[in-house]
Amino acid sequence: MNRNMILHTVGRIVMLEALLLLIPLAVSLWYRETGDAIAFAITVVIGLVIGFAFTIFRKREDSLVFAKSGFITVAFSWILLSLIGALPFTISGAIPSYIDAVFETVSGFTTTGASILDDPSRLSHGLLFWRSFTHWIGGMGVIVLMMAILPTESGRSIHIMRAEVPGPIVGKLVPRLRDTAKILYLIYIALTVIQVIFLLCGGMSLFDSLLYTFGTAGTGGFGARPTSVAEYSPYLQWVITVFMLIFGLNFNLYYLLLHRRAGAFFRNAELWCYLGIVAVATVLVAFNISDMYQSASETIRHAAFQVSSIITTTGYSTTDFALWPGLSKTLLLLLMMIGGCAGSTAGGLKISRIMLLFKIMFRDLKRLLHPRSVGVVQFDGKTVDDRTISGVSAYFFLYMLLLIVTFMALSWEPFSMETNLSAAISCFNNVGPGLAGVGPLANYAAYSDVSKVVLSLAMLFGRLEIYPLLFLLTPKTWSKKG
Amino acid sequence: MNRNMILHTVGRIVMLEALLLLIPLAVSLWYRETGDAIAFAITVVIGLVIGFAFTIFRKREDSLVFAKSGFITVAFSWILLSLIGALPFTISGAIPSYIDAVFETVSGFTTTGASILDDPSRLSHGLLFWRSFTHWIGGMGVIVLMMAILPTESGRSIHIMRAEVPGPIVGKLVPRLRDTAKILYLIYIALTVIQVIFLLCGGMSLFDSLLYTFGTAGTGGFGARPTSVAEYSPYLQWVITVFMLIFGLNFNLYYLLLHRRAGAFFRNAELWCYLGIVAVATVLVAFNISDMYQSASETIRHAAFQVSSIITTTGYSTTDFALWPGLSKTLLLLLMMIGGCAGSTAGGLKISRIMLLFKIMFRDLKRLLHPRSVGVVQFDGKTVDDRTISGVSAYFFLYMLLLIVTFMALSWEPFSMETNLSAAISCFNNVGPGLAGVGPLANYAAYSDVSKVVLSLAMLFGRLEIYPLLFLLTPKTWSKKG
Repeated sequence: MNRNMILHTVGRIVMLEALLLLIPLAVSLWYRETGDAIAFAITVVIGLVIGFAFTIFRKREDSLVFAKSGFITVAFSWILLSLIGALPFTISGAIPSYIDAVFETVSGFTTTGASILDDPSRLSHGLLFWRSFTHWIGGMGVIVLMMAILPTESGRSIHIMRAEVPGPIVGKLVPRLRDTAKILYLIYIALTVIQVIFLLCGGMSLFDSLLYTFGTAGTGGFGARPTSVAEYSPYLQWVITVFMLIFGLNFNLYYLLLHRRAGAFFRNAELWCYLGIVAVATVLVAFNISDMYQSASETIRHAAFQVSSIITTTGYSTTDFALWPGLSKTLLLLLMMIGGCAGSTAGGLKISRIMLLFKIMFRDLKRLLHPRSVGVVQFDGKTVDDRTISGVSAYFFLYMLLLIVTFMALSWEPFSMETNLSAAISCFNNVGPGLAGVGPLANYAAYSDVSKVVLSLAMLFGRLEIYPLLFLLTPKTWSKKG
Repeated sequence: MNRNMILHTVGRIVMLEALLLLIPLAVSLWYRETGDAIAFAITVVIGLVIGFAFTIFRKREDSLVFAKSGFITVAFSWILLSLIGALPFTISGAIPSYIDAVFETVSGFTTTGASILDDPSRLSHGLLFWRSFTHWIGGMGVIVLMMAILPTESGRSIHIMRAEVPGPIVGKLVPRLRDTAKILYLIYIALTVIQVIFLLCGGMSLFDSLLYTFGTAGTGGFGARPTSVAEYSPYLQWVITVFMLIFGLNFNLYYLLLHRRAGAFFRNAELWCYLGIVAVATVLVAFNISDMYQSASETIRHAAFQVSSIITTTGYSTTDFALWPGLSKTLLLLLMMIGGCAGSTAGGLKISRIMLLFKIMFRDLKRLLHPRSVGVVQFDGKTVDDRTISGVSAYFFLYMLLLIVTFMALSWEPFSMETNLSAAISCFNNVGPGLAGVGPLANYAAYSDVSKVVLSLAMLFGRLEIYPLLFLLTPKTWSKKG
């Protein structure tokens, strides 16, 4: 534990957030929303002051770098980013309760998209922009962004990056970590620009196109209207469907494509598993809901949109899927837990982790029948070492444990089990909408402040894949001398 | 795979069942229920014929014994036992639908206690006795019984016993397996007799005492009245509470006590963890339901009874816990999944398995912070080998997977998510009652035949801890030449 080092890094991240807040400030000024511009300006100043105060801490020649420092840095930054990012909502008076504003901001940064607002279109342009922009920042990771644009100490960076990028195995694209971060962000920006163009071609305004692209790119789910994507044309809905799936893929694959290694791209097992699940789930849902819609094309569009939205943990909707029959609803809950690919902006357990769990299970079944067999687990042609196997299994248990704890913490509330269970699953997996009382046309405003804090923590646990926050909240972390 | 060997063993088990059916036949005769006596007699004949036909298969000098044969033998026997055991209900006309009768019998043998009857007291004495007696047989295991009383081939027996006795590690009490089986059954019979005496002392009739003791001993849950245990005196309710907890303990511990090794008994980690969970859950539930009952003693009695009943997966009730507040209901669902101790008659994941999962998780957290640490998992003072660790982790994944599949298969039904989810959890963990539509005062009659088959399979999967049935249902098992 290098307390000074952690504080210094967190300080830089907070200062970066302050600079990013200049963008919604500019949007507020453009739309002549003076009150909101002032709220943003105050927050920028607060962020710069706190950030600068933290960067004063500096321990020189700190050669020993511990994994724990990386986890703590990430967890602490994400909490502070959310606490500061919530200020403009409360200072401007748009969301008077600070706890509500924090819930909304955590939901933004963690790319969950769960909201306490019944009609987001009542927010000013600046606030609406900031709300969606948090998705875009949180999707690829603010710390990865910092590594891409600021010079960092290489030793600790891998620990930090491992803690922020989702998935069981973090691969470096290129030897230098900073270059990896740069490449990831360049791909991210390129795909974002392409989606904006496609949406503009469909007649969406530039402002809405930006909002919906931020929500899609970060697999977040915040939009501009209370009905999410339901009021837009089929063309726009299909564009968003495709881009949700694109952002749910491992970004390393796009790097392969850029280097014309299409062979390696198409040999990727996670890709096919992901597309396979999407296809099967779409067909199942389409059959299950076929008598609810006018035409086959409408049925397929709604099925494909909702399945893509939920498995990538985006959370956009084109119809109120809380009214769908039981099988489709249960299937959606399952897709929430599966999530997108490792190394994407999506949440959930991640496809590759589930593939590994299946492989481990099959190895164990084989061992039961042939006790002398060794049984090797292979993934993408490579043998998976015992530590990764044990780690993935332990992660699954921890994941189920936290899901159950979240669900139990919500069971104090007077809502139905369907509401509470789907709220827990949806927030923990960074999806956004759930079923029944927290369905796509409803929101989380009815929950008590305690439950909102619980759900905010669940969102952070989900986005950072448990460990960073777990280590931050361990009493041991605080009892030892720094 | 030794097909002849499997058929021969299954034949013996079926013949044993036919002999056991003579007991309810005698009960029917005693109560002069001639029709039911005839139904039992017909079933005995059918059982003997089928059993005898199977025992004709015999492969001589079969020295190679595979683990798979053990699994298949157990799975096949349990299915056949249920199909034959259901006959008296349908032949006598008491349960006209054969699928309903099979559901009821599977529920009996797997010690689940889920029923399709709205009032069991309308059954005749003979059928009521048989219904509860299946709990007693299924609790310790019919195959263990066969090993205890009939001479068996020692080589295969350990595979069969491992497949029928619940828990991650099967320990032999004494070197000879047959003696272990005998000791287990003698302890089981002794405890059964003691409970009957305690119930008789409380003024319960001998017949009812036998029924409720069978239900308690097997941690089953079938009773004599539609209100389960609610109409009996507080004394009787406390007796059943204590005996449910006794039968939820690892039977190896009683063997230690018999040999005056109290030290080893009290050093058992699973024992304390089990009692700790019961104590904490009772306190939590008592606080949560305190304003629903008249006095503190009544509150504590209901809390302790329900917690003990659910964690041991018995399923008796003294009050309609489906009307309890959300927290208590969620807690009960969690206890259903935890289950009793390994080597007991209880279902669920088992305490020792969950303790191992926690230990594996903590080892992994340590490894994350100290990548060079080796990290050894210890249980009861012994180091757990890597295969057991991997096996427990894989089992947990498989368990969650089957639970989700069961829940999804039920989601076709027009019932609430609370009903379907609790039905899946309750049946898969061999508890019996669930919440809402399948609460302690309701029953499973409203489910379709398809769902009843799904739930019957879930009960068998739960009782036999997944593997035997999984191997039986694998297409590979049937494609190879026997």
